[in-house]
Amino acid sequence: MQRACTFERMRIQVGYELAYRCPKPTPMILTLNVHYSRASDLEAPDHLRIQPSVPSAAYRDSFGNWCTRIIAPAGLLTLSSTAVVRDSGAPDKVAPGALQHDVPSLPQDTLLFLLGSRYCETDLLSEVAWKLFSSTPLGWARVQAIVDYVHSHVTFGYEHASATKTAFQVWSDRKGVCRDFAHLAIALCRCMNIPARYCTGYLGDIGVPPSSAPMDFSGWFEAYLGGEWYAFDPRNHVPRIGRILIARGRDAADVAISTSFGPNTLETFRVWTDELPS
Amino acid sequence: MQRACTFERMRIQVGYELAYRCPKPTPMILTLNVHYSRASDLEAPDHLRIQPSVPSAAYRDSFGNWCTRIIAPAGLLTLSSTAVVRDSGAPDKVAPGALQHDVPSLPQDTLLFLLGSRYCETDLLSEVAWKLFSSTPLGWARVQAIVDYVHSHVTFGYEHASATKTAFQVWSDRKGVCRDFAHLAIALCRCMNIPARYCTGYLGDIGVPPSSAPMDFSGWFEAYLGGEWYAFDPRNHVPRIGRILIARGRDAADVAISTSFGPNTLETFRVWTDELPS
Amino acid sequence: MQRACTFERMRIQVGYELAYRCPKPTPMILTLNVHYSRASDLEAPDHLRIQPSVPSAAYRDSFGNWCTRIIAPAGLLTLSSTAVVRDSGAPDKVAPGALQHDVPSLPQDTLLFLLGSRYCETDLLSEVAWKLFSSTPLGWARVQAIVDYVHSHVTFGYEHASATKTAFQVWSDRKGVCRDFAHLAIALCRCMNIPARYCTGYLGDIGVPPSSAPMDFSGWFEAYLGGEWYAFDPRNHVPRIGRILIARGRDAADVAISTSFGPNTLETFRVWTDELPS
Amino acid sequence: MQRACTFERMRIQVGYELAYRCPKPTPMILTLNVHYSRASDLEAPDHLRIQPSVPSAAYRDSFGNWCTRIIAPAGLLTLSSTAVVRDSGAPDKVAPGALQHDVPSLPQDTLLFLLGSRYCETDLLSEVAWKLFSSTPLGWARVQAIVDYVHSHVTFGYEHASATKTAFQVWSDRKGVCRDFAHLAIALCRCMNIPARYCTGYLGDIGVPPSSAPMDFSGWFEAYLGGEWYAFDPRNHVPRIGRILIARGRDAADVAISTSFGPNTLETFRVWTDELPS
Repeated sequence: MQRACTFERMRIQVGYELAYRCPKPTPMILTLNVHYSRASDLEAPDHLRIQPSVPSAAYRDSFGNWCTRIIAPAGLLTLSSTAVVRDSGAPDKVAPGALQHDVPSLPQDTLLFLLGSRYCETDLLSEVAWKLFSSTPLGWARVQAIVDYVHSHVTFGYEHASATKTAFQVWSDRKGVCRDFAHLAIALCRCMNIPARYCTGYLGDIGVPPSSAPMDFSGWFEAYLGGEWYAFDPRNHVPRIGRILIARGRDAADVAISTSFGPNTLETFRVWTDELPS
Repeated sequence: MQRACTFERMRIQVGYELAYRCPKPTPMILTLNVHYSRASDLEAPDHLRIQPSVPSAAYRDSFGNWCTRIIAPAGLLTLSSTAVVRDSGAPDKVAPGALQHDVPSLPQDTLLFLLGSRYCETDLLSEVAWKLFSSTPLGWARVQAIVDYVHSHVTFGYEHASATKTAFQVWSDRKGVCRDFAHLAIALCRCMNIPARYCTGYLGDIGVPPSSAPMDFSGWFEAYLGGEWYAFDPRNHVPRIGRILIARGRDAADVAISTSFGPNTLETFRVWTDELPS
Repeated sequence: MQRACTFERMRIQVGYELAYRCPKPTPMILTLNVHYSRASDLEAPDHLRIQPSVPSAAYRDSFGNWCTRIIAPAGLLTLSSTAVVRDSGAPDKVAPGALQHDVPSLPQDTLLFLLGSRYCETDLLSEVAWKLFSSTPLGWARVQAIVDYVHSHVTFGYEHASATKTAFQVWSDRKGVCRDFAHLAIALCRCMNIPARYCTGYLGDIGVPPSSAPMDFSGWFEAYLGGEWYAFDPRNHVPRIGRILIARGRDAADVAISTSFGPNTLETFRVWTDELPS
Repeated sequence: MQRACTFERMRIQVGYELAYRCPKPTPMILTLNVHYSRASDLEAPDHLRIQPSVPSAAYRDSFGNWCTRIIAPAGLLTLSSTAVVRDSGAPDKVAPGALQHDVPSLPQDTLLFLLGSRYCETDLLSEVAWKLFSSTPLGWARVQAIVDYVHSHVTFGYEHASATKTAFQVWSDRKGVCRDFAHLAIALCRCMNIPARYCTGYLGDIGVPPSSAPMDFSGWFEAYLGGEWYAFDPRNHVPRIGRILIARGRDAADVAISTSFGPNTLETFRVWTDELPS
C-alpha cells in the first residue's frame, strides 16, 4: 500500500475554540496541547489561550501527556489555540511484515495496555475475539483483520455518539463514532494479547474527499507490533495523512480534552485542521 | 472512635497455595508479593515459590506493585508463599477530621484516581452520587456516608461473585462480594471528586468473630483526604486489624493476583492469615 | 535565619538553546524538562523543541526524571525550550531543628542515597568524614558543617571543570565547579549516614549580585533530615531564590542533560533564567 | 561449546556463616538471600539466621534484590544460612548468535546499565574501549572479545583484593579478584553501548578442578544482548555450572552482602557450595 516514494512535506494549521459556561468556579483539567512527540514540529508554541485569563498549571500525566489545570470562573470561559505543524506528508505507516510479540517478549511498559479499561471490557469480549480472530495470521494481519471487522461491523453516525458507550455496547448495537470504532478494536486487540492504546488528536481531510460534517477531534488507536506502536483507524480505514496527536491513554477516559469538576455547558465547539501552502 | 491507647504489636502469618493447570505453556503475570510499603514488616522475604521451577522476572508496574512474569508450563503449576508480617496491631485509622481537598489542591498523582475505570463507571453513577451525597458534609464524613450507603445497599454473598461485575451493576442489582462493595464505593467517591483506589491483600479474622467461609484475598479501597490515603472497607464496615496490602490500582482490573494469557483451570486455592504468638 | 514573613510570588522565565553537531546519526537521551515536582508551576508545557524535527519518546527513568530519547541526525541538531515557572519567591528552606534519622529509621527509598556512586566515593572519604564531622552536632547542623567545610575547602573556577572529576579528587585538589562542590558534600553526608542526592536545574541571580559568567545549568544537592529532603548549595552557600529543578539522581552521572551514544561537538550552549514582571 | 545434550539436574547445598563483632549497636543492611529468580529452586526457604536473635525487616531494593535490615547488638553477631537449591545442571548459556541492540532499541530499564557507576568509570575507559573493540563484530562476539581481553589482561590474586578498586585501576595495574574482572568488563561493555550489570552469588567447583582457595561469594556480570541478559565470567572464563544468584546491581557498591553503619570486625567468614546426591 505504501509506495516507495517520497512524500511532500507540508504545513498544517490546527486549532480549536471551545467555550464553556459554568454557573460557579469550576476546576478543569485540559488535555489540549499537541503531544510532546510532535512538539518539535510546531512552528511556534501551541499556547492554550484562556479567556478571561486565569492562572494555569501544566503537568504531565502518568502517560506523558501534557495537561493543564485551571479553575474556570463563573460565566463564560473560552479556550483556544492555533498552531502550525510541520508534517512529513507521509500517510500512516503500513508494515504488513510487523510481527506479533508473544506475551513473554512484550516490554513491561506495554503490559498495561493488555488490561481491561473503562470503555474496553476485555473480559466481556474475549470469547468473541478468539472466535473471530484465532484463525487469522499473527501480527500485522491480525490487527488488520480486527480493523477490517470493526470497520464493517459498525455503522458510523454522529447521532450514535454517547459518552458512556463501551466497546461491548458498540459490538452489540453496531453503531458509533470514531471513538467507538477505536474502543472496539482496542478491546479485541487486547483480547488477542496485542497491546493497544487509545489516541486522540487532529485529523483533517488531507488527500481524501472533504467531509461535510463539522470538524471534531478524532479518535484512533495504536497497536504494538514488532517493537513499535503503529496507528490504526478503524473508522476511516485507509492510511491517512496529517494525523496530529494530542494524547494517548488506555481509552477515552484517560484523554478527555476537558474534565470538569462541576456542571457546565459547552457553548462553542470548533476544531480546524487545514493544509497551508508550504 | 479511635481510642487514645496503645495497641499490642503482633505477628501475622500470611500465605497461599494456588494451583493452575494449563493445557499448554501459558504466560502469566503474578501479583502475589506483599506490597513494598509493607515490606519492612516482613521478617523474611516472601519468596514466591513456583513448582515446577521456571524462570521468573520481577518488575514494578506503573502503580508500584511488584509483579512477576513467568511462563507456566503445560500441566500443573503450584504457586505458594508463606511469610510472617509484623503489624502494629492498630485497627484501620479513623480520622473524622480529615478534610476533603478541593480539586485544585489535589496532588497530580491523585488525579488518575478520579477518572472512570473498567469496574468503576463514574459517568454512569455521577447523577446517583450527587443526589445521594451532595448534602452530606465534605471530607471524612462524606466518604463514611458513601461507605455506610454501600454497606447497607448491597447484600453480600459469594454466589454473587462475577469477574465482570461493575460498580453500576452492583448498584443496580444490590448484590456482591467484597470487591464489588469496594468498586461501588470507589465510583461514588470519584463522582464526588474524592480520589479513590482499589486495594487487594490479606485480611484475617483478628478481633472479630471467625468466619466460616474459606479465606480469600480481600478487596477494600483507599480514599484521599487531608493529604493522606485512608483505608475503608464497605464490606466489613468496621475498622479492622491486620490488613496486609498486596497491590493497589484503579480497580480490580489492575491488580489481579494472576493474569493468564491462555486457558487454564484453577485447581487449588488456599489463602491463610493467622495471628502468631509474638 | 528564615524570617517569619511572606515572600513575593514571582514568575521566572527559564530556557536553553543547545546545538550539537554529529558526524552520523547518534542516539541521545535528553534530560531537559522541568522536574515533575515543579510541573504544576509551569504556565504552559515546557516543550522540548528539536530542530530538525525527529521522532522522540519520553519516559521516566528510575529516579522519576522525565527523559527523552531521540536519534540525532547527521549534521546540526538544535534543542531549545522556553518556559515560565511560577515560584513562591521563598529562598531555600532553612530548618536548623531538622533532626538526623538514625539509620534504622530511614525510609527504604532513601537507602540507595547512602551508597557510593560514580562521582561520590564514600569508601575513600569515610575516614576523612568521620575525622572532620564526628564531633559536630547531629542533624541540620552536621549537614551545615559539611556544606561550610566544602565551601571553604574548595576554590571555585570554571577552568577546573572536568567531566571525570570525583568527590575524592575535589577534596584532594581543592578546586572545582558547582557540581564538584555538590559531589564532595554528598559523599561526606553519605559517609556520615545522611542520605544525599544530586540535583541539577536552573538557578538565576535573583536576589544576589548578578554574575558576569555566562549562565549554565546549576548543580546542588539534597540531604534527608527529619523526614524531608532539603536543598543545600555548597557552591553558593546562601539560601537562594528561584531554584528550578530539572533532575535528581545519585550523582551527576545519572542526570546528564544529554547522554550521546556517539561522537559529537557542542556548538551552542545558552541557558537563561530571568525574573519576569508578575 | 554448549553441547546439544540434556544436563543432569542436580542439587546444590549453599550456605554461609559470617560473624561480626561490633563495639556498639550497629545498623546493617544484609543482602544474603538467594535471588527471587531462584527462589523456586529452593527446597526450603533460605532463612537468614541471626544470633543473637534481633528483629529484622526484609525489603526489596530498587533492583529487586531482597535485603534485610537489622541492628547488630554490641558484641558478636553471627549470620548464617544453609539452603538446598535445585539446578538444571546446565552450564552458563552460550549464544554466539545473540545480536547487539542498537541504542534506540534498548528497553528503557536497561539504560541505567549503560551509565557510569562507582566502580565502573565509563568516562575514563571510553577511549580505551573504542580502540580495543570497535573493530570486533557486534553482539555476542564483542562481549566475548571484552571478556577474553579482561581475562588475559588482568592477573588474578587474592592479595590484590581492595574494596575501593575501580575498573580503571584494574585496567591500569592489571591485578585483581573476580569482582575486579567483572567491573572492568562491565565498564568496557557499557563504553561500547552494551548494557552490563554486576552479579554476586554462589559459585562452586562443579565440573572444574577443585580450588585450594577458601570459598568466597563470587562476582560475575550480565550483558544484555538480543533481548536477554546473559551471564559472563571474565575471571573463570569458561561456562560454569551451578551459579546461584544472590543480587544484581550497577556494580559491587549496590550489592554488598553487608553494609554496616558503624565500625565492626569480621571474625568468621565461611561460604560453601557443594553438590549433593540427587
